[in-house]
Amino acid sequence: MVVIMKPGTSQEHVEKMISYIKDMGLDVMVNQGVDCTVLGLLGDTRLIDPDTMMLNVHVDRVMRIAEPFKKASSKFHPDKTIVKVGDAEIGKENTFTVIAGPCSVETEEQIIQVANGVKASGAKILRGGAYKPRTSPYSFQGLELQGLELLNEAKEASGLPIVTEIMSPNLVETFEEKVDIIQVGARNMQNFDLLKELGKCTKPILLKRGLSSTIEEWLMSAEYILAGGNPNVILCERGIRTFETYTRNTLDLSAIPAVKRLSHLPVVVDPSHSAGMSWMVEPLSLAAMAVGADGVIIEVHNCPEKALCDGAQSLNLPQFESLMQKMKNVGAGLGLEV
Amino acid sequence: MVVIMKPGTSQEHVEKMISYIKDMGLDVMVNQGVDCTVLGLLGDTRLIDPDTMMLNVHVDRVMRIAEPFKKASSKFHPDKTIVKVGDAEIGKENTFTVIAGPCSVETEEQIIQVANGVKASGAKILRGGAYKPRTSPYSFQGLELQGLELLNEAKEASGLPIVTEIMSPNLVETFEEKVDIIQVGARNMQNFDLLKELGKCTKPILLKRGLSSTIEEWLMSAEYILAGGNPNVILCERGIRTFETYTRNTLDLSAIPAVKRLSHLPVVVDPSHSAGMSWMVEPLSLAAMAVGADGVIIEVHNCPEKALCDGAQSLNLPQFESLMQKMKNVGAGLGLEV
Amino acid sequence: MVVIMKPGTSQEHVEKMISYIKDMGLDVMVNQGVDCTVLGLLGDTRLIDPDTMMLNVHVDRVMRIAEPFKKASSKFHPDKTIVKVGDAEIGKENTFTVIAGPCSVETEEQIIQVANGVKASGAKILRGGAYKPRTSPYSFQGLELQGLELLNEAKEASGLPIVTEIMSPNLVETFEEKVDIIQVGARNMQNFDLLKELGKCTKPILLKRGLSSTIEEWLMSAEYILAGGNPNVILCERGIRTFETYTRNTLDLSAIPAVKRLSHLPVVVDPSHSAGMSWMVEPLSLAAMAVGADGVIIEVHNCPEKALCDGAQSLNLPQFESLMQKMKNVGAGLGLEV
Amino acid sequence: MVVIMKPGTSQEHVEKMISYIKDMGLDVMVNQGVDCTVLGLLGDTRLIDPDTMMLNVHVDRVMRIAEPFKKASSKFHPDKTIVKVGDAEIGKENTFTVIAGPCSVETEEQIIQVANGVKASGAKILRGGAYKPRTSPYSFQGLELQGLELLNEAKEASGLPIVTEIMSPNLVETFEEKVDIIQVGARNMQNFDLLKELGKCTKPILLKRGLSSTIEEWLMSAEYILAGGNPNVILCERGIRTFETYTRNTLDLSAIPAVKRLSHLPVVVDPSHSAGMSWMVEPLSLAAMAVGADGVIIEVHNCPEKALCDGAQSLNLPQFESLMQKMKNVGAGLGLEV
Repeated sequence: MVVIMKPGTSQEHVEKMISYIKDMGLDVMVNQGVDCTVLGLLGDTRLIDPDTMMLNVHVDRVMRIAEPFKKASSKFHPDKTIVKVGDAEIGKENTFTVIAGPCSVETEEQIIQVANGVKASGAKILRGGAYKPRTSPYSFQGLELQGLELLNEAKEASGLPIVTEIMSPNLVETFEEKVDIIQVGARNMQNFDLLKELGKCTKPILLKRGLSSTIEEWLMSAEYILAGGNPNVILCERGIRTFETYTRNTLDLSAIPAVKRLSHLPVVVDPSHSAGMSWMVEPLSLAAMAVGADGVIIEVHNCPEKALCDGAQSLNLPQFESLMQKMKNVGAGLGLEV
Repeated sequence: MVVIMKPGTSQEHVEKMISYIKDMGLDVMVNQGVDCTVLGLLGDTRLIDPDTMMLNVHVDRVMRIAEPFKKASSKFHPDKTIVKVGDAEIGKENTFTVIAGPCSVETEEQIIQVANGVKASGAKILRGGAYKPRTSPYSFQGLELQGLELLNEAKEASGLPIVTEIMSPNLVETFEEKVDIIQVGARNMQNFDLLKELGKCTKPILLKRGLSSTIEEWLMSAEYILAGGNPNVILCERGIRTFETYTRNTLDLSAIPAVKRLSHLPVVVDPSHSAGMSWMVEPLSLAAMAVGADGVIIEVHNCPEKALCDGAQSLNLPQFESLMQKMKNVGAGLGLEV
Repeated sequence: MVVIMKPGTSQEHVEKMISYIKDMGLDVMVNQGVDCTVLGLLGDTRLIDPDTMMLNVHVDRVMRIAEPFKKASSKFHPDKTIVKVGDAEIGKENTFTVIAGPCSVETEEQIIQVANGVKASGAKILRGGAYKPRTSPYSFQGLELQGLELLNEAKEASGLPIVTEIMSPNLVETFEEKVDIIQVGARNMQNFDLLKELGKCTKPILLKRGLSSTIEEWLMSAEYILAGGNPNVILCERGIRTFETYTRNTLDLSAIPAVKRLSHLPVVVDPSHSAGMSWMVEPLSLAAMAVGADGVIIEVHNCPEKALCDGAQSLNLPQFESLMQKMKNVGAGLGLEV
Repeated sequence: MVVIMKPGTSQEHVEKMISYIKDMGLDVMVNQGVDCTVLGLLGDTRLIDPDTMMLNVHVDRVMRIAEPFKKASSKFHPDKTIVKVGDAEIGKENTFTVIAGPCSVETEEQIIQVANGVKASGAKILRGGAYKPRTSPYSFQGLELQGLELLNEAKEASGLPIVTEIMSPNLVETFEEKVDIIQVGARNMQNFDLLKELGKCTKPILLKRGLSSTIEEWLMSAEYILAGGNPNVILCERGIRTFETYTRNTLDLSAIPAVKRLSHLPVVVDPSHSAGMSWMVEPLSLAAMAVGADGVIIEVHNCPEKALCDGAQSLNLPQFESLMQKMKNVGAGLGLEV
């Protein structure tokens, strides 16, 4: 950490700052510059809050050199984390895991049909929403507990483990019991009370990136879960908010190599929600593979006879089957097993 | 609501869509355009989810004409909402309410000294953090319950009502009992389970705008609380995330007249957190008055003898007193009572 | 185009608006809604400026249904544009074109060595900056005219056609004579006077997307060139500005399938500038292939003996050779010839 | 400037870097940290390009401590710049300058009527567009040279000096002769060839901030003009692009105190273009005063008999007169002469 004193700070105030830093158990190197004095802090600065430093009126700026996360960092944990659930080994080298299923669990028939369908095409995990975060209080909020039951029926029928979203710390116990991977949605990425509870959980956590979160904040939220004692976090990039309105969100694929370099945690991509358009799912899924993601989580719907189906952002089963085939072809060129 | 069918959609599929809309109890006007057919939906479309419409593969785009919120809308509730707490009447015409206090409650001496200080200068409500949302699990998380007790001591000593942040639905009962205004932080603006609980509460809610939330999403979160039965919501603009790095966040002051036009709810501005620099608090507070906000919420710290004080973004008591004086002068030109 | 009148607009003012629209040679369908009247404009609305509509005080909103571009649109020009330069056919189906070269032209030795090197690995076009847009007036502004001469020497030596950036309308004649593809940088994407001059040019234009431009604005800038009479525009995605600071810009790969659907123009990706880090060039190049781009433009440097080389974002020749090999492997899985 | 070497860099490479820096005439302080070595550069680092430093593969990050601008900096030029044009003294303490006029010059009658009208209400400078930057090649591009002539007629009739936008370096000579203040639009803020030409000009330059430009980049563009020899630059904040869609752009009023602290140059606010809605002009103008701007530039239209007038973002003359009155009242509370 580097602390830059304001231009014109008196020697007395610089000395005071130095002794303040030393009191925290750190060493200090002093650079007397032309414009200002720069202090280099030596030692484990990871636990020091830069804002606390800024409390001193003579401090101009504080710049981190080391990242603020530790348990999530590849520097302190060089071996890649591999999350094993059912047949899937998410994060294993040369492996690409496909998670698929409907946006919302609707009926027993629907979820079982989709589960069997995506399994036949090669998906390793079933997704499906039971508790739905909705912008409007008047929108359908999901089948809730009944949705969890239906997911479990589909799990039994297909053999696929299930992942679904949690929204409240009150439900952690229920999810721990009924769900294989617990998903934290983008809107709850900084719901710290929820993260703390999930840190005590034995089930893996799929942690979506917040709509306007930086990569560092995302890894700090993972750090909350890891620091609580749960080592199994899967990161999920799902698009960030920008000024572009053609796509719903802007999928930040450059975040994937960045996260793979900064952290040992596996990272998957959600191409369905970011774009919000089903015809974009295929190119974005292939790009996610090529850029180095450990997997994708894709919305797939059934409903052959209903007038309203195919969903703005969902694939139907034949489209999913075709995408799986293309992913296998591209995976071959990348040395990946899909 | 306007539904635009894809170019080349057959008459049969247009008819199907029309009957689907009519089944929802709405009327439809059909515009046969050159490129495509546009359907105008007549009736109360407020409760209809555009994404549901998009599920039909023949739909190109869905555009709302009416806003999706109702209880928060000035169209359905033309009288301004005035939230009365202690001596404050937030939202009353020609009135500007100042809320002030420290970032975190630290000690009994600190909070009482600040409470008495800001009251003497004209603040009407005391703020202070007991439960602190922190990006890092290793940062100080606040005095929690003890912080609430200290705030109540300061309330007794100064006579000022108190506002403090809640982070978990589990604490709503405690806050209902011990706090005058319950604050929802930016990171929890879309913590829908928390909003639902607060809708059942009798205390007013100060709802901060999320870091990357649109004005519409912000009002939809207010709608959650209003729809739950709690009519007293105060909106709080606290800066949005942009690419600009000089300021911590970009205070969106044009959101104030926008919200005052769209909604009957009062709206205050937080100039301390958005800029993150104490010397910006004065110009931004005066600008908040001039742009039409109903008040400001300002960080004020004491600590005369400590080496580290004045906080990066906090004013000390004399600075706050000086700001209050300037706000009174500018308020006079605007016809506002501060 | 849909025009929404303000709630409560009198019948008289609606009638006035209708006759105003009819005077522009369009037909109007009138939807009398519950809240407001919606006018559907029928005819070629592409040339109508929505802001002109907004000039009427009774108009609440104007929404485009058709895109505002015509010559750039795939609707009006269904055949893909293929730009042929040297051996390259950019935009040809199942073809992926690699453009490579140094950030700046520095010396004869440098540019010839890089040109021969990238050609040997399979690049089809040589890039190199002669006129450099620099944020600071004190930074090196490029070799300018001498740089163009050196590029031509490298062209002769290697046989590769050359692409380089233009910054002023005054230089169009010179570039027309000395350059094979003229590049418009992100900062000049809306330098309309420059675009108009390039519309009269016979050389293809590589048009980079502005740092905060929408896809629609980008295509409108292409429309300027096409409308001027030059049919050969190659679009280039190079990252947009977001709040994320880890990467220099956020490469918007979802813009590629969007542009391929909206337009017939070829689109390439610049993975070097967006990320600003050489180790990201490989994953982002492979992702660009997988997402459907027609090519990439990559920074490659030589300098075996200098201490300072390899550039923050540049590959050296062996790294480029290795990337070309991987692109060929992945291209095979995608059915692409690299 | 601080240079952070990558963790694990050998002593030999650190030494090489140090001697490289010393060759540039700077001194170096070396901080041997736990994770990495940090070099503090002492001397005038203002002219050094951080990207050049990043060319060394062993450099992890380069952080500026001093700002990269010099002539625009208040550190090197503590006296405020006051730009005198006609009766206006933009940047003079306790003075607030109002610039007003139509978006586009349309007819002699229009521009003279508006000029006389805004002068009567207290405006000091007339604005009006002759060359219009338009997103679409099919939109009206302004009256161009004829527009300049009409502006000069209005100047003669009203006595107000005129400001209008330039778009091409080819027109600098013409503008120098016919215009009192030359405006650079947001889209041309980084049209460096244009900025260089304007640096040789004797007329003041009104430099709008780019849609996604940082404050630092804005000041660097001013530096281009100042470095060329023209000391009279007026900065103009006109809104930045964010994800918010209710307002056209987000007016960044916190940029005003930031710029006033960093630079000696005057800064004005354009409340008409940023919001894009005429009813927002009043609150945003008052906020601009309160936040410390040196003036505003406001769109005002005439057209009593035309059906289409009042423009989406323009005030008519009575609205402007009313706004001037309110600005005088608020100005009194702020000690400003309007």
